Amino acid sequence: MEKVQQLKTHLSDVVRLNQAAALLGWDQQTYMPPGAAESRAEQLATLSKLAHEMFVADETGRLIEAAEAEVQGADYDSDEAALVRVVRHDYDLETRLPSRLVQDIARETTLGHEVWAKARQDSNFAAFAPTLERIYDLMREKAEALGYEDRMYDALLDQFEPHMKTAHVETLFDGLRAELVPFVAAIFERLDRVDSSMLRLPYDVERQAEFGLKVIKQLGYDFSRGRQDKAVHPFTTSFSINDVRITTRYLPDFLPSALFSSVHEAGHAMYEQGSSQSLEGTMLAGGTSLGVHESQSRLWENIVGRGKPFWQHFYGDLQRTFPEQLGGVDLDTFYKAINFVSRSLIRVEADEVTYNLHIMLRFEMENALLEGRLAVKDAPDAWNSKMQSYLGITPPDDAKGILQDVHWSSGLVGYFPTYSLGNFLSVQYWDKALQDVPSIPDDIARGDFSTLRQWLQDHILVYGRKLWPGELTERVTGEPIQTRSFMRYLKDKYSEIYGL
Amino acid sequence: MEKVQQLKTHLSDVVRLNQAAALLGWDQQTYMPPGAAESRAEQLATLSKLAHEMFVADETGRLIEAAEAEVQGADYDSDEAALVRVVRHDYDLETRLPSRLVQDIARETTLGHEVWAKARQDSNFAAFAPTLERIYDLMREKAEALGYEDRMYDALLDQFEPHMKTAHVETLFDGLRAELVPFVAAIFERLDRVDSSMLRLPYDVERQAEFGLKVIKQLGYDFSRGRQDKAVHPFTTSFSINDVRITTRYLPDFLPSALFSSVHEAGHAMYEQGSSQSLEGTMLAGGTSLGVHESQSRLWENIVGRGKPFWQHFYGDLQRTFPEQLGGVDLDTFYKAINFVSRSLIRVEADEVTYNLHIMLRFEMENALLEGRLAVKDAPDAWNSKMQSYLGITPPDDAKGILQDVHWSSGLVGYFPTYSLGNFLSVQYWDKALQDVPSIPDDIARGDFSTLRQWLQDHILVYGRKLWPGELTERVTGEPIQTRSFMRYLKDKYSEIYGL
Repeated sequence: MEKVQQLKTHLSDVVRLNQAAALLGWDQQTYMPPGAAESRAEQLATLSKLAHEMFVADETGRLIEAAEAEVQGADYDSDEAALVRVVRHDYDLETRLPSRLVQDIARETTLGHEVWAKARQDSNFAAFAPTLERIYDLMREKAEALGYEDRMYDALLDQFEPHMKTAHVETLFDGLRAELVPFVAAIFERLDRVDSSMLRLPYDVERQAEFGLKVIKQLGYDFSRGRQDKAVHPFTTSFSINDVRITTRYLPDFLPSALFSSVHEAGHAMYEQGSSQSLEGTMLAGGTSLGVHESQSRLWENIVGRGKPFWQHFYGDLQRTFPEQLGGVDLDTFYKAINFVSRSLIRVEADEVTYNLHIMLRFEMENALLEGRLAVKDAPDAWNSKMQSYLGITPPDDAKGILQDVHWSSGLVGYFPTYSLGNFLSVQYWDKALQDVPSIPDDIARGDFSTLRQWLQDHILVYGRKLWPGELTERVTGEPIQTRSFMRYLKDKYSEIYGL
Repeated sequence: MEKVQQLKTHLSDVVRLNQAAALLGWDQQTYMPPGAAESRAEQLATLSKLAHEMFVADETGRLIEAAEAEVQGADYDSDEAALVRVVRHDYDLETRLPSRLVQDIARETTLGHEVWAKARQDSNFAAFAPTLERIYDLMREKAEALGYEDRMYDALLDQFEPHMKTAHVETLFDGLRAELVPFVAAIFERLDRVDSSMLRLPYDVERQAEFGLKVIKQLGYDFSRGRQDKAVHPFTTSFSINDVRITTRYLPDFLPSALFSSVHEAGHAMYEQGSSQSLEGTMLAGGTSLGVHESQSRLWENIVGRGKPFWQHFYGDLQRTFPEQLGGVDLDTFYKAINFVSRSLIRVEADEVTYNLHIMLRFEMENALLEGRLAVKDAPDAWNSKMQSYLGITPPDDAKGILQDVHWSSGLVGYFPTYSLGNFLSVQYWDKALQDVPSIPDDIARGDFSTLRQWLQDHILVYGRKLWPGELTERVTGEPIQTRSFMRYLKDKYSEIYGL
């Protein structure tokens, strides 16, 4: 496979430049002194520019073509065939975008982020509207440049969830919505059955950190190839399979925040750490899509971390860590508390049950805005009426409504649905893991996370980007992505918690 | 200055790549998880390779020539003229080295470092000798490639101290040696006059860190553009004028180590932070030579930090921080203790008085080895007899003798003299500062370091690399580098301490 090797060698500089850029980004969020902002922007611009130029060079195209000829007839699962497939996909995406458009988007979204932040602070949508208009114009231009067969949104979605189609997401959401909206409404009738007030006491931040660290180490996040630092926003970033770092932040008077976000990020990090070592330094290392990535973080955060077996193991320890706050709270009460449902206005604070309604709303609005069925000026009203119909509440102002998320101002259109796809997949993968290894819940209750981790490693993580998300799910579960399992999971869990 | 601007733009990617590489190096020494070593080496190799390739490209040569024509007749001190001068110097150095030789040196020193570490551990010079032979062969080859008029060593020295000549260093050392050796011998007769045992008690590491931080902030190291972290070895690194970081390590039972090394590194860092902002993102930012760099670190560490006025200000605070250890020690006793002289075998632990004898020894040996006047096999004997004649002691083994320093195994030949040049310059600059601003010692005794800092800023720091070290010293002090001032400083200070 001489040609594939040439392609790999040619691209290794691109991979290493991108890894270096990721480290600069991590440092920016963790340790960089404030005065360095401008020089850091210049350094990142140089690395991104060089990586982009080297990747879209004609030489890359020629090497891909030669490698494609060489891998014809090769095993589909071989590293070589997969590398050529994935590089072709990324190369086509990146070369289809004129650099003028890339620069326009970069400029508009750099400014746009500031305009949005100010508009949200003032709860003034009108101040953001012209920027949003321009961003959607650019997104339409981007979709046309990338190309699509059916729906304009397909082109944007494909960047984050390769080969997923808009119509497919609509079908999934339609099915879920029909069952979920009445289920949410039923729970909303009984919100007072769960008391979560003990989670909102003062919790010493040092002890939170220590407990959280112990938990994620035990889950299997490998600290010889990773670390956790503090940052304003929790995130996962990776500079190679063997250097995957997470960040967190601690709220002194809300226990679940740092703990579950640490477990969430550890889920992402274990995915990045799990790629086969043969993929290190190539474009095949890492996660195959944002949806599959989110399946890992949500599986660990929600199914495991907010599940009963997990707390059968950890709750005694947590009580000993916070005896004043939790000494008199029994396991069942605590379990219900960490799964409390609320009429949430803010997506990032939403519980498992309502979370996907927030996503559907954004997905529907993104499509309508992109296809011109909704004017930007009418967007806040559309947002508010959807909130009322899905969640039974109307935001008091646009800051808590349409202005709450950073994504659109950053040009991230087509991104939101991957959060829901991740939720659906997390339950499908979990169900399959339990079918293969029925002892997993008992293992977890004993503090043994290795059976689950090994199953995920062997069936999902090891592949890196070698299989597209749809292929991976079919191969792992024997069927495509669906919402049936997720809805059943919600009903089972929350019917018990809320006595439905 | 269109051509200069083109050159600047062309080189900005090189500068940013090198800055990014420096951050990767910093992370490697501070926060990188151990598993990442291999991928980090790949990332650094890519960044260095790209920066080198872009710098030595023919395009750079053409742009320099065009810019040289443009700056003819321009003000020597202008940023433009200086940029062209410095880039020409660096370009000639880097293009004269065949990439085959660069690779040979890289390979030999990468291996060499491990061979040396093992040999030192076993105190077995014979195991290191073949490597040292090859390294000196490569150094001769390097010197020939770089070119020189008088002495082979000139070519190597010039990399670290531009335009300094070997013969000049010899003259300086000859003059100093004649006075220093008998002075050291006289002090060695009276070592028992200073008791430093109170420095070797247990000192809480957290309190050491807090006190050290307070000190370097007060000196003027700007933490909005810098930070201090822990690492195995103390060092300073810079990713722009506005992001200059230092590291330190704490010894739990030797107070001076972390404290004075923090002040030392802060001296380096303030030099890097002090370049004119107009030089940011160009090859003119930073220090003009290792010698001038060391003048700043040693001025702050020794002349200021081990001086009386400094402790008139800080000693009360230090006593309150460590009441058990220092409560009963008066200022004069403490001042003498931190300036204790010893028959030091190890250079990095040597006091101000004996330090330069260690450097002379290495400088003489480097020249003799390079010029073939000394065979590698005879080097340990040469080392030991010089130690006896300069310092009156013979190392008990080669680990504490010829194998103690990392430099030769890393291919750093020509580097050592800059330590001494820095010591000489530190006193010359200090004398001139006091002549211009006589209140400086009193200001320091009151805890006001701004008058000294501002003088250094205006006379040295602001220039970055715009003036060569010799030019800078002439301009600042009105004379070339000399050892007279340094020897007078030693005699004044240590005659008092040791009652000579």
